Amino acid sequence: MNTRNTAKIRLYVEHPVGQGQTILLDRDQAHYLFGVMRLTVGAEILVFDGQNGEWLAEVVEAGKRGGALECKAQTKPLQLPPDLWLLFAPIKKARTDFIVEKAAEMGAARICPVQTDFTNSERIRRDRLQAHAVEAAEQCGGTYVPEVAELAKLDRILADWPEDRQLMFCDESLVGARAALSAEKADKWAILIGPEGGFSEAERKRLHAMPQATAVSLGPRILRADTAAVAAMTLWQSTLGDWG
Amino acid sequence: MNTRNTAKIRLYVEHPVGQGQTILLDRDQAHYLFGVMRLTVGAEILVFDGQNGEWLAEVVEAGKRGGALECKAQTKPLQLPPDLWLLFAPIKKARTDFIVEKAAEMGAARICPVQTDFTNSERIRRDRLQAHAVEAAEQCGGTYVPEVAELAKLDRILADWPEDRQLMFCDESLVGARAALSAEKADKWAILIGPEGGFSEAERKRLHAMPQATAVSLGPRILRADTAAVAAMTLWQSTLGDWG
Repeated sequence: MNTRNTAKIRLYVEHPVGQGQTILLDRDQAHYLFGVMRLTVGAEILVFDGQNGEWLAEVVEAGKRGGALECKAQTKPLQLPPDLWLLFAPIKKARTDFIVEKAAEMGAARICPVQTDFTNSERIRRDRLQAHAVEAAEQCGGTYVPEVAELAKLDRILADWPEDRQLMFCDESLVGARAALSAEKADKWAILIGPEGGFSEAERKRLHAMPQATAVSLGPRILRADTAAVAAMTLWQSTLGDWG
Repeated sequence: MNTRNTAKIRLYVEHPVGQGQTILLDRDQAHYLFGVMRLTVGAEILVFDGQNGEWLAEVVEAGKRGGALECKAQTKPLQLPPDLWLLFAPIKKARTDFIVEKAAEMGAARICPVQTDFTNSERIRRDRLQAHAVEAAEQCGGTYVPEVAELAKLDRILADWPEDRQLMFCDESLVGARAALSAEKADKWAILIGPEGGFSEAERKRLHAMPQATAVSLGPRILRADTAAVAAMTLWQSTLGDWG
């Protein structure tokens, strides 16, 4: 589904984009654009900063260690995703990277790694996960980059859970996801994906007791956490999100 | 979502399982059960052959190069997935492996790699992909293993497409996936996921012209093929499949 090959290069930049703005490129960006992609002065790419939409930008300076772009015209307005958080328990490195990538592609506004009773991993590389979110945003045509939060304990997060944010979590013992989900409507949502091994009994009890919580089923088969994340976000986006 | 850690080992076996049946283990299976998992005679595991449900089996012989299991009792009846085919254009190795794994987890009955106008890869390792489907079935608690077909050209497949099988394909130019999908009801379905670069204009025309075809949207962002496969199967399973 990736049309990057046929489209212009898309680059996320920290510097605000806008009419006449000059974007200075760091070493990595220069290496990618001029070393790997072989662009030269005059070439056009697409840039976005996560706040001012997507802009057509021209290479005005190309060096080994740096370079500069000049914004020409806006090609896309800022399109914010719905106010959806994805909470997930970090698993094996590759699958954790996938979950972050998928969350950005699927349109999560915020990505929150959580430590549950059965979570194996004690720490994450937040910077690396954030880089995956940026790359996914560049590749999926989005104009927004979800922030990857620091790893936090689930019980702490649930302890002061915002009253006005609905929480959808996946309970393997249930069926009838759609019915359950489409019953609940709210602007602010979060999806919680359990770790390998599922939730502990205490966590399950606590979640079911929360007035903001909606338990959904993802079918009769046990899904891996990364599959479950995409499936849950699909149910949500197609029922309450921006797929309509 | 994986409860394997807390559950018994699940093993797919070629030999038919059933009351009193003895299952001879090959070298790889023996290495996994006795070498890696350190099982000994008397240990119990779960076995399934894709046709006779899941059975509790006891290790009656454990060797370096082989061994034997004896079926004790059926623990699950055969649960066939809906008659859903997943057609997809092979992409980079890792993501192709993921698509096959996800298809088995999500409950596809048949997995068909197809060569489209914009498909990069000319060949696949059918045996390796089939092994991924088996592993996914073992891990997701399924009692069925979807067959991975040989790589075939999309135009050939569409040329003699069965009249009674609906075809859902993802068109990035559309919105309103659910409406489009829930309108169509049929027993036999297939989902077609395009390659990176999408479908060619000719392919898109041909698909839209097919009476069996339903175009759906997977939202405003461009999804990678592996994300799109899970998202499309989620829409189908939750609307027409076995998630209800």
